Amino acid sequence: MNNIILPERGFAKEEFEQRLIRAQKIMKSYKLDGLLLTSPQNIRYFTGYDSQFWESPTRPWFVIVPSSGKPIGIVPEIGESEFKKTWLDDIKSWPSPRPDDEGISLVKSTLDDLQKIYGQIGAEFGKEMAIRMPVRDLLKLKEIIKTNIVDGSDAIWDMRMIKTNNEIERIKFICSIASDAYNSLPAKLAIGDTERAAVNKLKIDILNRGADNVPFMPGISGPGGVSQIVCGPSDRILENGDILFIDTGSTFDGYFCDFDRNFAFGSVSSDVERVNEVLWQATEAGIKAAVPGATTLDVFNAMNKIIEDGGAIGNNVGRLGHGLGLQLTEPPSHRPEEKTIIKENMVLTIEPGMEYEKDKMLVHEENIVIHKDSAELITKRAPREIPIIK
Amino acid sequence: MNNIILPERGFAKEEFEQRLIRAQKIMKSYKLDGLLLTSPQNIRYFTGYDSQFWESPTRPWFVIVPSSGKPIGIVPEIGESEFKKTWLDDIKSWPSPRPDDEGISLVKSTLDDLQKIYGQIGAEFGKEMAIRMPVRDLLKLKEIIKTNIVDGSDAIWDMRMIKTNNEIERIKFICSIASDAYNSLPAKLAIGDTERAAVNKLKIDILNRGADNVPFMPGISGPGGVSQIVCGPSDRILENGDILFIDTGSTFDGYFCDFDRNFAFGSVSSDVERVNEVLWQATEAGIKAAVPGATTLDVFNAMNKIIEDGGAIGNNVGRLGHGLGLQLTEPPSHRPEEKTIIKENMVLTIEPGMEYEKDKMLVHEENIVIHKDSAELITKRAPREIPIIK
Repeated sequence: MNNIILPERGFAKEEFEQRLIRAQKIMKSYKLDGLLLTSPQNIRYFTGYDSQFWESPTRPWFVIVPSSGKPIGIVPEIGESEFKKTWLDDIKSWPSPRPDDEGISLVKSTLDDLQKIYGQIGAEFGKEMAIRMPVRDLLKLKEIIKTNIVDGSDAIWDMRMIKTNNEIERIKFICSIASDAYNSLPAKLAIGDTERAAVNKLKIDILNRGADNVPFMPGISGPGGVSQIVCGPSDRILENGDILFIDTGSTFDGYFCDFDRNFAFGSVSSDVERVNEVLWQATEAGIKAAVPGATTLDVFNAMNKIIEDGGAIGNNVGRLGHGLGLQLTEPPSHRPEEKTIIKENMVLTIEPGMEYEKDKMLVHEENIVIHKDSAELITKRAPREIPIIK
Repeated sequence: MNNIILPERGFAKEEFEQRLIRAQKIMKSYKLDGLLLTSPQNIRYFTGYDSQFWESPTRPWFVIVPSSGKPIGIVPEIGESEFKKTWLDDIKSWPSPRPDDEGISLVKSTLDDLQKIYGQIGAEFGKEMAIRMPVRDLLKLKEIIKTNIVDGSDAIWDMRMIKTNNEIERIKFICSIASDAYNSLPAKLAIGDTERAAVNKLKIDILNRGADNVPFMPGISGPGGVSQIVCGPSDRILENGDILFIDTGSTFDGYFCDFDRNFAFGSVSSDVERVNEVLWQATEAGIKAAVPGATTLDVFNAMNKIIEDGGAIGNNVGRLGHGLGLQLTEPPSHRPEEKTIIKENMVLTIEPGMEYEKDKMLVHEENIVIHKDSAELITKRAPREIPIIK
């Protein structure tokens, strides 16, 4: 990994101009006259606008990306003054809350006025996305506008899956500080800590190192491994023989890292040592397989062969890694039914996991950037031997 | 405010049984044969299930609440083992990610099998809600199931607007620790700090005091007040004459507080002193007006009269407070067009704000619980005089 410097927050106008040029080419290939965007990540991608108010579902926010010309913002009055600081020129607003017309009449007239070639507008209807507006209003909008609203998610993911160098710089930074925090954690842990206390130490350290937020940090423990990786931390006390699994999606300037680490308490069984080595090897194979032109299936197979040979009895995660960026998880997925072609400037997780006995699972995870000939590791590689907390 | 103790996390089975009995009565009054739920807050309300995986949009989760009998869970395999620890008996799962059928066939068959009286199912289609599943799948589901899916949000809000005592206990706890953290902040601040550094100090203190997370913490500053309250913190340096506004939605066991505080740097102008006193009085009036039987309009008017008399030139927030609970913002809203009747066990914000000169705004906020005869303040009241940081 190269030297990491603290990136400036926010992007220059030129960055958004370049994203827009590329987006409009992709829209054309999908025969879309425009995109209707409502989610924080998609709005931020095209405008740079971020807000604490995403946490409040009262007010929807809209950005419309036309097939030519700059995006148009339609935002509640509470956000108008800040939205005017983005690179957009055309910003409309309405007094909100106003549940009977929460921006819908403005969205309708703006969509109706768009130049039409194909007669369809793309919206956030597909995988790894949800619209951020009341469905009631969406259904009404579909009825009253003159154009079809279709699923634009494949087009949006074609745009966002390939990162710019400025986006990659931000992901590298958050990966770097989270790596340092993970590496500092063993010295702060002891047998007798709770899962919750351990997670809190890591969270506060990551914030002190310059992360903006830590929206995702499961911490789960169990004897010789964990039974699941989705819920926790709890007040469970860490004892001899336990494995503590911590995963984090921390953010800087809107961009996520997503990788985990495992810590052993007291002693490590030979089974854990063996499985840990299998997953370390699987990670190596996954990183090596992730080159431009290969598919997500190739990356899956490279890891899965090693995991199967290593004696896996199962894995309920359903995939062995995925994209990341403005979201903790994004397309593509390394899984049996997906053959997305790996391309330069994708940012991906390599995430092999295996259950080796009932309710005893280990999962490894690293983050990589795809370059012309190979993948660059942007997390600091997990130690080959699992750290032991005494 | 009464003494605050650390509540246990999670709820007894009896709590969910009581919520369900009440919910099914409300469903009947809305002529709903069931509810289809997808959002983290609604699923948690009926099952107690929480997960870090809400941060990843890859996999939808579903809970169906029938008109009689216990809720049914339909969850991706990655979450099945933890979901089985809830009080639900009937839990179905599918291997996910599987974009071509991300749980939809299971949801269809479960909805088709529900006992039908009215021929309609309520879903999260209305205000202050968004569904958490691809719209593409929702539209498909609407076509293939035998029953109408209608907007169930009014019914859901009738349920969630009235809190149980156990819910109130949690909100009181997070209000209490956030109050203590705000009160400790002035001693940690100095002229020359950045907004970002000030916010980070408060965030870490709230986490150290026992909050689970701090999903919402805008921090904004400006000479004599702020121009907006939705974006920030930035790296702006705090100088003599500035007002720093910090708001927080921190959580404990899923429940939010939502209140702000203002801090002056160096010196305070007579205008700021005057406006601060107007808002302090407006808050008193709002708290006093919030009694069972009054309406949200009454609460709005009580505050608004004092703000108007105090010389407000505007307010782009659109309301003077709202409900809170599992979300940072929930119905009802104290605003001119809303006459929701205030009822016992509602938890509300009282949030008067005013712009007294262009781009100079102050906003106050406290949280209250409605009792039989009066409102109980559950935040520690902001100091009447704005604290001055030297």
